[in-house]
Amino acid sequence: MNAGESYHTQHSPFGAFASFTLGLVDSPGGFGQSLRGPAKQNLYVGFRGAAHAEWQLLPFLTPPKSQEGAFTGDTTVVQAPRGFKALRPSDYERTLGWASDTWRADEARFGFSLLTPFGQVPDPAKLSKAAARFHLAPAITGWIEYDNRKGKKPVELMFGVGAGDDTLRPLTDTSDALLGFAHGTHFGYATVPARGVTMRQGFDLIDPKFRDYRGLHVIAGETGLVFTVPAGQRKRFPLALGFYAAGTITSGITASYAYTRVFTDLEDVLTHALAERERYAKVAALRDRELARSKLNADQQFLIAQATHSYYGSSQLLWHKGQPLWVVNEGEYRMMNTFDLTVDHVFFELAWHPWAVRNALDLFVRRYSYTDQCGISFTHDMGVNDFFTPVGRSSYECDGLEGCFSHMTMEQLLNWVLTATTYAAHTGDIAWLRGKKQILLACAESMHRRDHADPRKRDGIMKVDTSRAAGGSEITTYDSLDVSLGQARNNLYLAVKTLGAWVLLEKTFARLGLKAAAQDARDTADLLARTITTKFESDTGFFPAVFEKGNRSRILPAVEGFVYPLFLGYTDATDLNGRFAPFFAQLRQHISQALQPGICLDEKSGGWKMSSTSTNTWFSKIAIAQHVIRQLFPEAMTEAAEAGDKVHADWQRTPGCGEHAMCDQIRSDTGVVCGSRYYPRGVSAYLWLSE
Amino acid sequence: MNAGESYHTQHSPFGAFASFTLGLVDSPGGFGQSLRGPAKQNLYVGFRGAAHAEWQLLPFLTPPKSQEGAFTGDTTVVQAPRGFKALRPSDYERTLGWASDTWRADEARFGFSLLTPFGQVPDPAKLSKAAARFHLAPAITGWIEYDNRKGKKPVELMFGVGAGDDTLRPLTDTSDALLGFAHGTHFGYATVPARGVTMRQGFDLIDPKFRDYRGLHVIAGETGLVFTVPAGQRKRFPLALGFYAAGTITSGITASYAYTRVFTDLEDVLTHALAERERYAKVAALRDRELARSKLNADQQFLIAQATHSYYGSSQLLWHKGQPLWVVNEGEYRMMNTFDLTVDHVFFELAWHPWAVRNALDLFVRRYSYTDQCGISFTHDMGVNDFFTPVGRSSYECDGLEGCFSHMTMEQLLNWVLTATTYAAHTGDIAWLRGKKQILLACAESMHRRDHADPRKRDGIMKVDTSRAAGGSEITTYDSLDVSLGQARNNLYLAVKTLGAWVLLEKTFARLGLKAAAQDARDTADLLARTITTKFESDTGFFPAVFEKGNRSRILPAVEGFVYPLFLGYTDATDLNGRFAPFFAQLRQHISQALQPGICLDEKSGGWKMSSTSTNTWFSKIAIAQHVIRQLFPEAMTEAAEAGDKVHADWQRTPGCGEHAMCDQIRSDTGVVCGSRYYPRGVSAYLWLSE
Repeated sequence: MNAGESYHTQHSPFGAFASFTLGLVDSPGGFGQSLRGPAKQNLYVGFRGAAHAEWQLLPFLTPPKSQEGAFTGDTTVVQAPRGFKALRPSDYERTLGWASDTWRADEARFGFSLLTPFGQVPDPAKLSKAAARFHLAPAITGWIEYDNRKGKKPVELMFGVGAGDDTLRPLTDTSDALLGFAHGTHFGYATVPARGVTMRQGFDLIDPKFRDYRGLHVIAGETGLVFTVPAGQRKRFPLALGFYAAGTITSGITASYAYTRVFTDLEDVLTHALAERERYAKVAALRDRELARSKLNADQQFLIAQATHSYYGSSQLLWHKGQPLWVVNEGEYRMMNTFDLTVDHVFFELAWHPWAVRNALDLFVRRYSYTDQCGISFTHDMGVNDFFTPVGRSSYECDGLEGCFSHMTMEQLLNWVLTATTYAAHTGDIAWLRGKKQILLACAESMHRRDHADPRKRDGIMKVDTSRAAGGSEITTYDSLDVSLGQARNNLYLAVKTLGAWVLLEKTFARLGLKAAAQDARDTADLLARTITTKFESDTGFFPAVFEKGNRSRILPAVEGFVYPLFLGYTDATDLNGRFAPFFAQLRQHISQALQPGICLDEKSGGWKMSSTSTNTWFSKIAIAQHVIRQLFPEAMTEAAEAGDKVHADWQRTPGCGEHAMCDQIRSDTGVVCGSRYYPRGVSAYLWLSE
Repeated sequence: MNAGESYHTQHSPFGAFASFTLGLVDSPGGFGQSLRGPAKQNLYVGFRGAAHAEWQLLPFLTPPKSQEGAFTGDTTVVQAPRGFKALRPSDYERTLGWASDTWRADEARFGFSLLTPFGQVPDPAKLSKAAARFHLAPAITGWIEYDNRKGKKPVELMFGVGAGDDTLRPLTDTSDALLGFAHGTHFGYATVPARGVTMRQGFDLIDPKFRDYRGLHVIAGETGLVFTVPAGQRKRFPLALGFYAAGTITSGITASYAYTRVFTDLEDVLTHALAERERYAKVAALRDRELARSKLNADQQFLIAQATHSYYGSSQLLWHKGQPLWVVNEGEYRMMNTFDLTVDHVFFELAWHPWAVRNALDLFVRRYSYTDQCGISFTHDMGVNDFFTPVGRSSYECDGLEGCFSHMTMEQLLNWVLTATTYAAHTGDIAWLRGKKQILLACAESMHRRDHADPRKRDGIMKVDTSRAAGGSEITTYDSLDVSLGQARNNLYLAVKTLGAWVLLEKTFARLGLKAAAQDARDTADLLARTITTKFESDTGFFPAVFEKGNRSRILPAVEGFVYPLFLGYTDATDLNGRFAPFFAQLRQHISQALQPGICLDEKSGGWKMSSTSTNTWFSKIAIAQHVIRQLFPEAMTEAAEAGDKVHADWQRTPGCGEHAMCDQIRSDTGVVCGSRYYPRGVSAYLWLSE
C-alpha cells in the first residue's frame, strides 16, 4: 500500500444506519449501529502457515490485554496476545472499489474482501417480500481466501471480532446454518458450516488458554472463525456481517426499521445473506466495473468510492404507519434529513432510489414546513439521533444568532424548490408534481418576499431575514465558514442558488400549465442575473462573496446554483452565450482568477478552498463546484486546479481524515478534518460520472 | 464527608439489570443498562443563589469540552463549562441508607436524595397488573430541595445528565405529564411539570450559548432540569429515573423483561414513578429505619446498605413463555445465576422474594443439570451477558484445568442441595419439595459417589473429580485463591459445606418421610465430622486447608458450612456440646488462632483474610464467616477481629473499591479490588441482621 495510506471505510447495508468500519492502520473498528464514528472492536483478519508460523493479521486491532485477570484476581500474569504479526501497510495491497474493499497479502495469495452491493432499490412500499429481503437485508457480504496451490502445508485463515468490554455468543446455539458469533440480538458475523471451518472464543484469540466442551470459552470477549486451506488447494470462504435492531427505534414519530417487516431476527438476516451471496457479489462486481471503467482518474474514483461507502452508513429506511420513512442521518451529527444534505444527495439518490427523495420532500411539507412573515419555508432538519423534532421545528436552529446554529429559512426554501423540481423533472413524476402545485406557488411567493415586501423594490436577491431568527441573521448551509459564505443576506452563493431555483421553477410552472407563474419565474431569473452582474468588481474581475460592507472574499460556490439546470439539461440557462451571457462572462473571469494558488487553491496544499478567506473547505461542495466548472468553464481547469483531485484524495486516505471514514469539513492547509466526520454528503461527487 | 470517602453506589430498580450509579468523587456515572460497571455520563446536581453566584455542583462530572467545535469547525474557542464549583467532599455530607442515598450541603439547606425502595415482592406469576406496576417498575425515585426560608433571593437547583457522545430528547414532546429528558426509548429522568421548573439542554449546561424556540438545543448532549426556590420558601421537587428495554433481551432462552408486560414505554414508567412517589418513599423510609435501628454498628450498616444497592443492580426479572424467569447477573462478569452466588443470596432472597430462589432451582434442574460418572450435578451458571448457554452447560467451566475456569461439579451439587433444602425449610413449601424428591435422592447418591465409588471406602470427603474435568481437577467457588481454597478434592471448606448439606438433607428426607435416606444422611454427617477431626493438627491447633501434600494454609471458610443449620435453627447440629462436639472444639481453636494478625487478619490493614496464604479476600464470604463465628465462637471475636468491620467498610467507601460500587475480591493488604467489581454477592451480610 502507498506509504502513509491509512483510512477507515464504512461498509454498510442499505438503510440500516449501521456500518462495519475498518481500514485505519493500527486501529480497531467493527460493527457500529447508529454511531457517530467508528466502533472500537478488535478485528482479527489474516493467515498463518507456510512461511509464517505466526498469525499475520491486518493491523485492525489494538491487542487487548486478556480479561483473564478480572477473573483470577491476578493481573501480573496476563498479557496482550502474542504470537501474531500486525502487518505493515507495505505488506499488503488495499483496493477500494465502488462496492468492495479488498486486501491482498503474501504475494496476493491471501485475500480478504468486504462487499457492499448497492444498486437500484425499487419503492419499498411496492416491494414483494422476496424483493424486500434482497434489497433491504441489513447485511453485507465478504470473503476470505488463500491460494495454497503451491503450498506443501495447510494454511489457516482467520476472521474474528473482539467485543472488548462485551461478549459475543456462538450462533451455533440458535442456528444450524451458521458458524459465527453474535452480540446479543444486535449484530454478528457468520460463514456457512463446512469442513475445515472452526469457531474460536477466548480471552486471547491467538492462543486460547481455556476451552470448554466444544472448544470455546463464552465468557470471553474475543471471537473468531478459523478456516483451513489444505496444501495444494485454493479456497475462498464466504462471510456475512449483519445487523438487527428490533422494535421502536425513533421517538417524535414512532417508527421501526423497514427490514424488520421481512426479517425475523439476526439469524434470519445472516442466513439470507449467505444464501444470496453470489447474487450480491454480482451486483458488487457490476458497480466496481462501472466506476473502474469510467473516464475519471484514480483519485476521483477513490473519492466517489469512499463517499458512497459513507453515504450508505448514514442511510436509514424506517417504517411508520404502513409506509416507508426515509432518513439520511448527518454523519457524526446524526441530524435527520438535514435539508442541506438532501439537496446535495439528490443526484445520487435519483439514480438509485428516487422514491427516497420524494419521501423526504413529502415529510418536509407535511411536518417540517412553517410560515414566517414572508411565507412558507422548511426546517433545517427533522430531528437528531432517532428523535423526530416537533412539527415545524428542527434540532439545529436557534434564535437570536448571527452565525452557526441560526435559522436557514431562505436556504431551506430554495432546497425544497430545487429538490422538488429536480425530482419531478428527472423522474417525470407529474402526478406528484401536480399535488404540490400550491406548495410550489407558495414557495415562489415566499422567495419574492424574502427579496422585498414591495414588488417594485425587488432585485432578486434575498435581503429579508426570517422573523424566526428573532433579531439574529439567517445563515446558509456554510454555517462554519466565515461571513463570505455564512451570512444569507446579500450572499453571492445564495443569489446564484436562487437563480437556479427560478430557472427550475419556470420549467416546472410551465409543465403545470401555470403560464403567468412561469413567466414571473423567468422574469425574476433575468432580473436576478442582471442584479448580480451589477455586483461585479470590474477593477478586480471578481464578485464579492457578500454584497455588503465592502466584502472582498472570493468563493467557488458562486457557481453552485448552476448544477441544477446542468443536471436537468436546461441548456437555455447554461448556454454561455444565451440569456445569462453577461453574467457568465463575469463568472468565467471570477472562477478563472479564483482557481489560483493563494485565492481558492490553498497555497500550501494545493487543495481547493470554498472561500479565499477561510481555510475550512468542504469536499462535497468542492465536488459540485468542480463538476459545474468543468462543464461551464473548462478553461479554468488549469494544471494547478486539476492537481486538486490528488490532494483531496490524499486527505481522505490519510489519518487526518481517514480516521473518521469520509470527511467533509477539512482544513485546506493541513488536510485535517475539522467537522462533518463519518459523513454522507461526499456522494455529491457522483455527478462526475455524468461528465 | 470523611476525608477520603469516595465511592459509587448503584441505585437500581428491582429486576431491571439497570443502575443509576453515582457517588465517586470527581467522576461521572449515571444510567447504565446491563453494564459491567458504572456509566460515564456527566451528572449535574447542585444549587446556586444566595451566597453562591456560581453553581455549586456535587463532584459527579468531568466537565465536557463543548461539542460546539465539532459543528463550527473551530475548536479553539470552545472550552469546558465554567461558572460552577465542583464541591469538595468537605463541603457536603453523604448518608447512605438501606434504601436511600442523600447528600446535604450549604449547612444542610441543600438536599438531594435517590431512593431505592425495595421490599417484599410477591410471586410475579400471581401479581395483579396494579401490583406488578408497583413492584416491577423499572424506575427509582428521588428528590432535590433547598430550604430558602431565611433567604432573601431565589435559589436555583439543578438535576441534569450529560450523555457525552450521545444526545437526549425532551420528554415534553411525548408526554404532557413529564418534564425531563430521555435517551432514545431506553432511559431518562423527569419531574412533575410545575411553576418554577424549566428544562435546559446545550453543549454547555451551565451557560447554554444557543437556545431554540423553547430555550433548548436538542443536538447537544447535556441536559438538565432547573428548579427555582423563591426566597422565604423551602421546596422539595420530585425526581423519577427510569429504564425501559423492549422486546427480546436474551438468546438461548428467548425472554423479555417482565415489566414490559405492564408498562408500555419509558414515559409510562416515569409517569407511574412520579405518581406513586409517596408510596415508594414510605417503603424506602421503612427500610432505612429498619437498618438504622438494628444493633449493627455503623460500618456494618454501611456494608449492608452498599451491598444491597449493588445486589439490585444485578437483578433481572425476565418473562418466558408466560412465566417469570429470575436471573441475578454476576456483577462485572455478568454470568447469569452463577450458582455460587445463588447459594449466598438465599438468605436475602428468602426474606424479600423467595419465589426467585425456587425459580432458579427449577431452571437448574430443568436445563442446567447434568450427569457425570458419579451422578447428577449442576452447572456453574446459566450463561453470560443475556446469553443462556445450552442445556447442561455453563459459560464458565472449561476442560483439562487445575485452577480457575475448571469445573465445579461437587460445589454446585452442594449448592443445589443447600439452596433447595434451605428454601423448602424456610418457606414451608412442601409441595415443591415433594416434586423434588427424586432429585434430592439423586443428589445424595451423587454426593456419596464423589467420596468413593465403594461405599465401604467412604469417609465423607469429596475425593473424586468429575469426568467433565477431562483430566483436570475440580475447583471450588474460591477459584481465584491459591490451592488453600481453590482445589475441591480433600478440601476443608468443601468438607464442612458437605457436612452442612448432609445435615439439611437429613431434615429434608425426614420431612419427606424418607426414613432410610434421612438416617443415611445423618450417618454420613457423623462419619464426615469424625473424618474431619482426624485432619486436625494437634501440634499447631489448626486444620489444614487441604488434606493433601502437607498443606498448612489456614482458612476462615472452614466454618461456612454451618451457616445453613444456623439459619434454619437446626440446633442439634450447631450445639457446641452436641453430636459434633469434638469437631467444634477443634474448630473453635482453629478460628481463634486464625483470627490473629498475620494469619487470617491482614498484618498491614487488619482486614479479614479468607486464607492465611492469599491476600485475595472476598467480602461476601467474610460476611458469612463473621456471622457464623459470632454465633458459634463469640470468644474468637477479639478486639482485633472486631476492628475488621471498619477496615472492610473503609475499603468499600474509598476509591480502591468504591470506583466500582460494591466489590467482592479485595487485596487484604491494600484494600484495592482485584476482581468481582459491581458485585451483588455482598448481600450475604444481610445475615448479620438476624444476630
